Amino acid sequence: MHALVYTGIKELVYREEKNPKVINGESIVKVSASGICGSDMHAYHGKDNRRIPPLILGHEISGIIDKGKFAGKKVILNPLITCRKCDYCSSGREHLCIKRIILGMNKPIERQGGFAEYVSIPNQNIYELPKTLEMKEAPIAEPTAVALHAVELGEKKLSKSLKDSKALVIGGGAIGLLSGLILSKVKDCKEIVIVDPNEKRLGECSKYLNAVSVKPDSKSIIANHFDIVFDTVGMEVTRQQAINVVKPGGVIIHIGLTHPSGRFDFRKATLQEITFIGTYCYTNEDFEKTLDILANKKIGSLAWIEYRKLNEGASAFQQIHDGTCSSPKIILLI
Amino acid sequence: MHALVYTGIKELVYREEKNPKVINGESIVKVSASGICGSDMHAYHGKDNRRIPPLILGHEISGIIDKGKFAGKKVILNPLITCRKCDYCSSGREHLCIKRIILGMNKPIERQGGFAEYVSIPNQNIYELPKTLEMKEAPIAEPTAVALHAVELGEKKLSKSLKDSKALVIGGGAIGLLSGLILSKVKDCKEIVIVDPNEKRLGECSKYLNAVSVKPDSKSIIANHFDIVFDTVGMEVTRQQAINVVKPGGVIIHIGLTHPSGRFDFRKATLQEITFIGTYCYTNEDFEKTLDILANKKIGSLAWIEYRKLNEGASAFQQIHDGTCSSPKIILLI
Repeated sequence: MHALVYTGIKELVYREEKNPKVINGESIVKVSASGICGSDMHAYHGKDNRRIPPLILGHEISGIIDKGKFAGKKVILNPLITCRKCDYCSSGREHLCIKRIILGMNKPIERQGGFAEYVSIPNQNIYELPKTLEMKEAPIAEPTAVALHAVELGEKKLSKSLKDSKALVIGGGAIGLLSGLILSKVKDCKEIVIVDPNEKRLGECSKYLNAVSVKPDSKSIIANHFDIVFDTVGMEVTRQQAINVVKPGGVIIHIGLTHPSGRFDFRKATLQEITFIGTYCYTNEDFEKTLDILANKKIGSLAWIEYRKLNEGASAFQQIHDGTCSSPKIILLI
Repeated sequence: MHALVYTGIKELVYREEKNPKVINGESIVKVSASGICGSDMHAYHGKDNRRIPPLILGHEISGIIDKGKFAGKKVILNPLITCRKCDYCSSGREHLCIKRIILGMNKPIERQGGFAEYVSIPNQNIYELPKTLEMKEAPIAEPTAVALHAVELGEKKLSKSLKDSKALVIGGGAIGLLSGLILSKVKDCKEIVIVDPNEKRLGECSKYLNAVSVKPDSKSIIANHFDIVFDTVGMEVTRQQAINVVKPGGVIIHIGLTHPSGRFDFRKATLQEITFIGTYCYTNEDFEKTLDILANKKIGSLAWIEYRKLNEGASAFQQIHDGTCSSPKIILLI
C-alpha cells in the first residue's frame, strides 16, 4: 500500500509499505481521510518519545471496512485502544487505562497509523459513520471528542453554569477552536475570548466562532477575570497567562503538551484556590456523544477544515510548521 | 497591653503596645490562647509580603469578650474577615472574597493579630466556645478548618469514596497531621501514608494518626500509586513528589506556600489527567463544621499540641525554625 511515513525529524516520505495483517478481533479499514493532529506535529519535531521513526502517524481516521465482519460499511475510528478489563476501563474512564495505546504510535507497542491506504483496528473501536456527516470531514470526530471531554471536565468543576461563565481559550488550533465551538454552541457560553499569535488563524476562527479573537498581548485579556481558561498550547508562557487571568476559585483546563515542564505561579494557585486539570483524550461515552454532536451539526459549519492529498502530506506538515497555513485543521484524503 | 511584636526578619520582641480601639460592629477580645501557624513562620522568615514588620502576628485565637455585646463569653475567632457583599461572599465562598483580610496581617489593610493581650474582631467572626473544648486547645479550630476544607475539596473531585482511596500526606506539621486525622477519623480513609524528613515530628504524628509514617525517600512511597496527595509543604521538591506518586486520574491538594514558583511535570498532569487544586482557608460553613468536629472529639486527643507562654514566644519561633521542636503545633498562652 501507499503510506506517508515519518522517517526522521521534519522528514516524511510517501512510499510503498506492507499492508497491515488481519488480526483476530480486528478489521482492516481502507482509509478515506486522516487528520493531522498537534501530537503528529510534536512527533514530526522529534519531541514525542512514544512516536519514534520510522512510523506511519495519524489517528483521526474515517474509511470503509475492507476486511472484517462489517466489510463495506462506512466508519469512523476511535483510535484509543484500551484493555477493557482494568479498574479504569470498567468504570468508564477508559482513557486512563494503563495499557492504552493509540494508532500511529510505536512505544511501548507498535500500532501503525492512518496516513496510509489501510489500517488495522479492533472491532470495538469502530463506529458507523452518521449519514449526515461527510466521510472526508469525519476525522474531526477525534479532536472534537478531546475538546468535549475537556469542556465537560471544566463544567463539572466550575461553581456556576458555563452559560454564565467567562471563558478564555488559548490557542486557535483545532482543539482551541473546537473547545470554543462546544462552549458556544453546545454549552451556550456567551463570553468567550480566543487568543493566538497567528493573525491568519485568528481570522479563520472568527469566521466560525462567536468570540472575541485577539493576540496574546491584547487588553481584552484581563488579569483575574476568567472563570475558566483552556490552555490548548501548553507552553510555559501560555500556562503563565492562564494562571494570571483566571479568577479566584476558577479553573484551568490544560490540554497542550508543547513544554513538558516550566515555571508556574503556585502561590496564586494556592491563595486563590485555582483548580488546574490536565486532560488528554476522551472516554468511549465522550466519543459517542461527539458523533451525535457532529451528526446533528451542533457545532455548525466545518468549512474551516482544509483538505490535501496524502501524497502532499509532507508539504502540509511543512506549512503547519512554518505557520503559513491558516486553517486550524488539515485532513489528508487518501 | 503586652504583645509579641514581629519587628524584623527572625526577630520578635515582647513589649508594651497600645490597646486596640473599640470599633462599631466589633468586639475587643481578651486573648487566652493563640497558635503559631506556618504562615506566621513564613512572615518570620521575611517571605510574606502581606505581613511587614512591625506587626503583631497570630490568627488562631481563643479568648473572652472584654468589650462588646457579649462581654464575658468564652469564644473562638474566625480570623478571616470578608466583605459579606460580593459574589463570593453571597455564594458561600467567603474565603475567596477579593477584600478578605486576616488578623495578623498589615497589607493591604492593617489588622493586628492575636499574639497580644487584646485583639479587635468583627462580631460576626466570633463563635461561642463549645463546652467540651478547652480554651487553651481552641485555637486549633482554625488550622482544622483549613484541613477540613482541603480534604473536602479533594473528596468532591475524587472519582471514588475517600474510604476506598489511598492517600499520601506530605508534611507532618499541623495541617498535615490534621488533614490525616480528618481523612482517618472523619472520612474513614484506611490507607494513609504521612511523610516528613523530621523524625521527631513523624514520631509525634504516629502516636495519634493511624498511618504509615515515613521519611520522603521511603519505599512506601510508590510512583503512580495514590488516589489523592496532600502537599501541605509547597516546596518544589514536595510538588515533584506529589505529581510523581499520584495515580492517573488522581488529585493533588496543594496547601503549602513555601516555594511560590518552581518546575512541575505538566506532561504527566496532562497525559494522566491529574487535577491540582490550590486551597487556602475555609468557608464560614467549614468553620462551623470544624467546631462540631472538635466539640465532639471526632479527631481524637489533642495532646500533640505544645503550650508556651506569650513572653516565651520568640524562643518558640526559634525552635520551630531550627527544627528542634517535635510538636506539630505550638499554642502561646497569654
